Amino acid sequence: MIQTPYLLFLGDAPDQLAAKVAQGIKDWRPDNAVGQFRMEGCNADLGLKDMDLAKAKAAGARTLVIGVANRGGVISQAWKKVLVQALEEGFDLASGLHNLLRDEPDLLAVAEACGQTLHDVRVPEVDYPIANGKRRTGKRVLAVGTDCSVGKMYTALALDAAMKKRGMASSFRATGQTGILITGDGVPLDAVVADFMAGSIEWLTPDNDPDHWDIIEGQGSLFHVSYSGVTLALIHGGQPDALILSHEPTRAHMRGLPEYDLPTLEALRDTALPLARVANPGCEVVGISINTHHMGAAEAERYLKETEDRMGLPTVDPFRQGADRLAEALASL
Amino acid sequence: MIQTPYLLFLGDAPDQLAAKVAQGIKDWRPDNAVGQFRMEGCNADLGLKDMDLAKAKAAGARTLVIGVANRGGVISQAWKKVLVQALEEGFDLASGLHNLLRDEPDLLAVAEACGQTLHDVRVPEVDYPIANGKRRTGKRVLAVGTDCSVGKMYTALALDAAMKKRGMASSFRATGQTGILITGDGVPLDAVVADFMAGSIEWLTPDNDPDHWDIIEGQGSLFHVSYSGVTLALIHGGQPDALILSHEPTRAHMRGLPEYDLPTLEALRDTALPLARVANPGCEVVGISINTHHMGAAEAERYLKETEDRMGLPTVDPFRQGADRLAEALASL
Repeated sequence: MIQTPYLLFLGDAPDQLAAKVAQGIKDWRPDNAVGQFRMEGCNADLGLKDMDLAKAKAAGARTLVIGVANRGGVISQAWKKVLVQALEEGFDLASGLHNLLRDEPDLLAVAEACGQTLHDVRVPEVDYPIANGKRRTGKRVLAVGTDCSVGKMYTALALDAAMKKRGMASSFRATGQTGILITGDGVPLDAVVADFMAGSIEWLTPDNDPDHWDIIEGQGSLFHVSYSGVTLALIHGGQPDALILSHEPTRAHMRGLPEYDLPTLEALRDTALPLARVANPGCEVVGISINTHHMGAAEAERYLKETEDRMGLPTVDPFRQGADRLAEALASL
Repeated sequence: MIQTPYLLFLGDAPDQLAAKVAQGIKDWRPDNAVGQFRMEGCNADLGLKDMDLAKAKAAGARTLVIGVANRGGVISQAWKKVLVQALEEGFDLASGLHNLLRDEPDLLAVAEACGQTLHDVRVPEVDYPIANGKRRTGKRVLAVGTDCSVGKMYTALALDAAMKKRGMASSFRATGQTGILITGDGVPLDAVVADFMAGSIEWLTPDNDPDHWDIIEGQGSLFHVSYSGVTLALIHGGQPDALILSHEPTRAHMRGLPEYDLPTLEALRDTALPLARVANPGCEVVGISINTHHMGAAEAERYLKETEDRMGLPTVDPFRQGADRLAEALASL
């Protein structure tokens, strides 16, 4: 559990895209972001107040979050100066970088000396149990995709926002590094040892109030041969009551697999639903989220309508339209 | 890769069942077993020559394999004396125990001093790649089960023996600790990090001669919610040309999951085959292996015939009948 709120470290981000983790935090959990810390040469700007460490501390920030992809996979000396000082000023550090904070001897030593915590959210910090498959109270929804990176996390976060707006009880449950940094908690599922994958998701989505919804962040795809096992563990550990099908219509092949075509939404439904019903016989597919980022407005509208008619399910682009109709579908379940 | 042949360490095994790893090595790779080492109080006997370390060394043994489940999860002082001496005499040690050899400071220190290797086969020793899904040359067969522990490893080993007897080119590819100790090599799949599961199986079953068969040891079950993700990674990483369905007919519920019924063989076929065809569109179900251990001879025969008629596939109990008919089915593929 990462202590909130955060000061978002943008470092020397070469452009706005390099700061997309910070952008996600600001967009989805603005209360978690008291300000941004930018170094000389930083070309990203979240529109938050620029703060130095002392100001951020005074504003209540407890963790400095590295919200930027670094250049060359190395934590530079220029960054180090800020990170060390942050530890000395009483901040924890949190990062989703491949190169771990804990592997930097200076950061490790200073953190220990100052009694501060280094959170490398790519690395599991919990001994997860083996899944026991027992039915849990409360409700769960999971987005499953025709491919990786088709907008499952965005769908889940938009759904969480739409449900809260309707007054429904919901929790976004992060299963990847960006989601974990956004919410401060979660399971880095792709780094969990095979035997404990499903158990980690049971742990993440425990018994809850009967009308509470866990919105579980999806990972991979049943049709992506590199990561399909992770997806099935998520389906069986999450035992969802509802599935949302996610798709990106303009993709020429499965991400990173030029020899593999994307499945149809029908194939995804017919594969995912019977597997989900092994763990939860009452599971239903309730809606479809389409990532129309690479389509014009008219083309997107046409595609959404055609898909909705064909599949007989509420079909939205949560980025263009929000996820109200998906929340509505869950409310009536 | 564990150096063969082995001296099989039975320690103070309370009964024959406790020595089942050693029994598996002796049954399936008799050439790997030059002798057995029994301590006072050992009640197991593999029918191999009893040897002390010097005799085994002279007979060519290179690794002392702990072929016995230890009591209480601790490597006892009585064992230690033998293990330390073995290292000093130039043996490597290999073990599938939960408590690792490398976590014993004395064994670690002596192994380092003597330049010998400690193999804990529960722990991956390779940095596996992420799966790339590219089609590989050679052929592959995988047993998938209605449940865990229904005889998939036994089926694979029996099939390997039957294929070799027919003069077919085949390799048993171990994916669990017992299989790894039997053959000296393999992937401890349940201990691999999620993102690398499918890649580890691609690594295990690389390009091969067009008529060579990799017989991949199955794990878990698509219907076992604790481990289904491991099974799907095996199917997509292995990209099998042929599946064998494995079943144990007398089981009242899924192993360790009292609330879960076993699926039918039809459900297993209809779930596993479409998923396998994502990675290998030519995949076929070629046969069925039934574990009739808990049935009388007549009942078993009836069950096998009824299943064969119903499913239209060669159906055998490899323990009672061998796997010749499964090998035949593969030969005609």
